[in-house]
Amino acid sequence: MESRHIEVCLSPSLLNNFSLEDKIVVVIDLFRATSAMTVAIATGVKELIPVATVEEAKKYQYNGHILAVERKGMAVKGFDMGNSPIAMLNPELKDKQIVITTSNGTKALLKATGADQVVVGSFLNQDAILQYLIEQDKDVLFLCAGWKDRVNVEDSLVAGAMTQELMDHGFESVCDSALMARTLFASVKGDLKGFLKDSSHTKRLGHLDLGEDLALCLEKSRFDVVPVYRDGSIVAV
Amino acid sequence: MESRHIEVCLSPSLLNNFSLEDKIVVVIDLFRATSAMTVAIATGVKELIPVATVEEAKKYQYNGHILAVERKGMAVKGFDMGNSPIAMLNPELKDKQIVITTSNGTKALLKATGADQVVVGSFLNQDAILQYLIEQDKDVLFLCAGWKDRVNVEDSLVAGAMTQELMDHGFESVCDSALMARTLFASVKGDLKGFLKDSSHTKRLGHLDLGEDLALCLEKSRFDVVPVYRDGSIVAV
Repeated sequence: MESRHIEVCLSPSLLNNFSLEDKIVVVIDLFRATSAMTVAIATGVKELIPVATVEEAKKYQYNGHILAVERKGMAVKGFDMGNSPIAMLNPELKDKQIVITTSNGTKALLKATGADQVVVGSFLNQDAILQYLIEQDKDVLFLCAGWKDRVNVEDSLVAGAMTQELMDHGFESVCDSALMARTLFASVKGDLKGFLKDSSHTKRLGHLDLGEDLALCLEKSRFDVVPVYRDGSIVAV
Repeated sequence: MESRHIEVCLSPSLLNNFSLEDKIVVVIDLFRATSAMTVAIATGVKELIPVATVEEAKKYQYNGHILAVERKGMAVKGFDMGNSPIAMLNPELKDKQIVITTSNGTKALLKATGADQVVVGSFLNQDAILQYLIEQDKDVLFLCAGWKDRVNVEDSLVAGAMTQELMDHGFESVCDSALMARTLFASVKGDLKGFLKDSSHTKRLGHLDLGEDLALCLEKSRFDVVPVYRDGSIVAV
């Protein structure tokens, strides 16, 4: 097998600069969309259908679907839930279909079409994702969902952690964003929680009661699942 | 004076996500456009006229202007020079007008119009830029030129170094790119040259004989100049 390459795209608004062809794209929205999706698939949710807008989500109402709708860090009133990973632990969600729209994560997912495969990554399923990537014969692009098309630190940290692990397994990279992300992760991994206190996410949403959710999102490899996005829905690979 | 804020835009393709209004934009293309411009102004060049294309530069031929035209890391044949900072040390350039187009730096400069002020930053004039920013009553946006609209590490390092210094002088930041850049700089500042061996710039242009140029670009605050871009040309402030 030839050496496989890693790139990191730090924000969806940079995605035009990358080719998706024949690559596996790992979409990352640590706080909290892809963490919630990881939990949902681990809980046994049958499929997650990511949609771009609240209006699209509404179309699925009265159809047996659960509607997960988040904006500005909160569940939008009138829907079943937001994007809380803790809420996705609910065993009653097993075998359900969940329609989900979030501020950043679902948009990034929808933008990744054109890749050979699109998978959903987070710290919660880091080892499962890495094992999966190692077994495939494809180059990898980590796509950070960011915040409103800006770069954020938390998604960059996940990309950096996974990049370093893959390089330790022989993957190569000539991508500066990958170099930045793994250097950043290496320098703060001893105290991720402390480092994230300075992040824009904390400053923006620190007033919300998200502590338990964020603590869950920082757990490494709690779930052995690889959610894959294909034909419009996210399912276990 | 109210607290002033810092943001970092890691690539021109992210610039749409930032407001430029009433801000000082510091454009950074460490290797090598803004380093070369810094040297040129320090050498006593009367003005630098940044243009987007080789064709535009040609229009200034036979007009007494010096034409500095760089593509793919090299001076383009048929013009007077490229974007080598070493070449800009030439005392014969004093009082000359230089028309300059480079792969990334001039494009970033031209994109920054709309800001209150646009200045040209590099390690070579770091202290002068910082002193200037501290004396103004404006928020600051560091605009990294990147490479072909992608993020690069060297420009991010300059932005990170300057961000940290300004925060030590009371500036604030809620920008995650600023947090990433200053964390990155802090973690590798002990061996910038070693760190940059892994950069895409080294891998892309390592075959060119740029060693002296790059060593000059890494010198801190050798020149006490603040080149400012206004009315279509770059002059000493």
